[in-house]
Amino acid sequence: MRVWSSPEIEALIARLARLPGLGPRSARRAALALLQEPETRLKPLMAVMGDAAQTIRTCSTCGNLDSQNPCVICSDDERDQSVICVVETVGDLWALERAGVHKGLYHVLGGTLSALSGRGPDDLNTRGLLERVDGGGVREVVLALGATVEGATTAHWLHHQLAETGVTVSRLGQGVPMGGALEGMDDGTLAAALMARRRLET
Amino acid sequence: MRVWSSPEIEALIARLARLPGLGPRSARRAALALLQEPETRLKPLMAVMGDAAQTIRTCSTCGNLDSQNPCVICSDDERDQSVICVVETVGDLWALERAGVHKGLYHVLGGTLSALSGRGPDDLNTRGLLERVDGGGVREVVLALGATVEGATTAHWLHHQLAETGVTVSRLGQGVPMGGALEGMDDGTLAAALMARRRLET
Repeated sequence: MRVWSSPEIEALIARLARLPGLGPRSARRAALALLQEPETRLKPLMAVMGDAAQTIRTCSTCGNLDSQNPCVICSDDERDQSVICVVETVGDLWALERAGVHKGLYHVLGGTLSALSGRGPDDLNTRGLLERVDGGGVREVVLALGATVEGATTAHWLHHQLAETGVTVSRLGQGVPMGGALEGMDDGTLAAALMARRRLET
Repeated sequence: MRVWSSPEIEALIARLARLPGLGPRSARRAALALLQEPETRLKPLMAVMGDAAQTIRTCSTCGNLDSQNPCVICSDDERDQSVICVVETVGDLWALERAGVHKGLYHVLGGTLSALSGRGPDDLNTRGLLERVDGGGVREVVLALGATVEGATTAHWLHHQLAETGVTVSRLGQGVPMGGALEGMDDGTLAAALMARRRLET
């Protein structure tokens, strides 16, 4: 094929295409938008990326990403220090914070146990969680893990590890999501929803 | 709302969300991916953006983006210097080059004439095109403009401007796109396709 585009442009497109949510086509459009307006698009984006690269670190307590360590959540005295919500990823933590439903602290595992992928307890931040619980002051650990085989395995293992510490271990409720029509649900969700049925008060 | 995310992260998400093809949700996912792997994602992307910002310029002849000026297309002696394909944007030029169907040169107008948006001939790179044609050596100008009211208006105006230069002025064929089912086509496309019908050889 005849060369018609510069290697600098192709390198930019290739890097953008690696971002989740951007395919080769949209990466090309994004690169074009950046290059057509270097002063108002390309350079400002470079600047905020530079800021983020310099300041954002992993919180050594919970595993969240923040410019301070411990992170703003771990440092917030108004949050309930006695409840730790265990999530797989920082993305899950962000989703819960956006919903604004959890008033306690978090702990990011960094994934799930997986025999298939060869991820054992030492590959996740499980030790950190057990140390936090051992440190005292924790009343409840909420396992907010994905409703997958790996998530369930991880929850089971953590429950077992925490059994003798005396803290309450809970997991997220399962059932039909808000706004979900029964017709579209898979069998597993329907079974879980039926098992988790609640008696209505009269 | 309680502050739970650092301003550096929010600034990065806001900037990413301005890219075409990325909404607020996917920008958040992209930011997270960058921040979770700073060494293998964030910094390499910053590096290629820096390279592009330093090297990529607008070709002073045709308006393409490239690291050399005149661009690699304008400098290619093997291309047909006598045919200039006029496009609205660099994205259009890239689309034609990807298809590999045009063997001549290009000219990027930078948009279309638009009474509604107040864009006149002086707001586009029309003067450059007329100067290239006046410079001689041009046999044909292909108007590869969008099949929109503005595209048609711009084509009409350019055709008029080029009328006395003696060059052949053509525009792209119109009709049913490849792979298109008639049922899904709009009335305008069907009308144009019927008008542009071709007799089959027996």
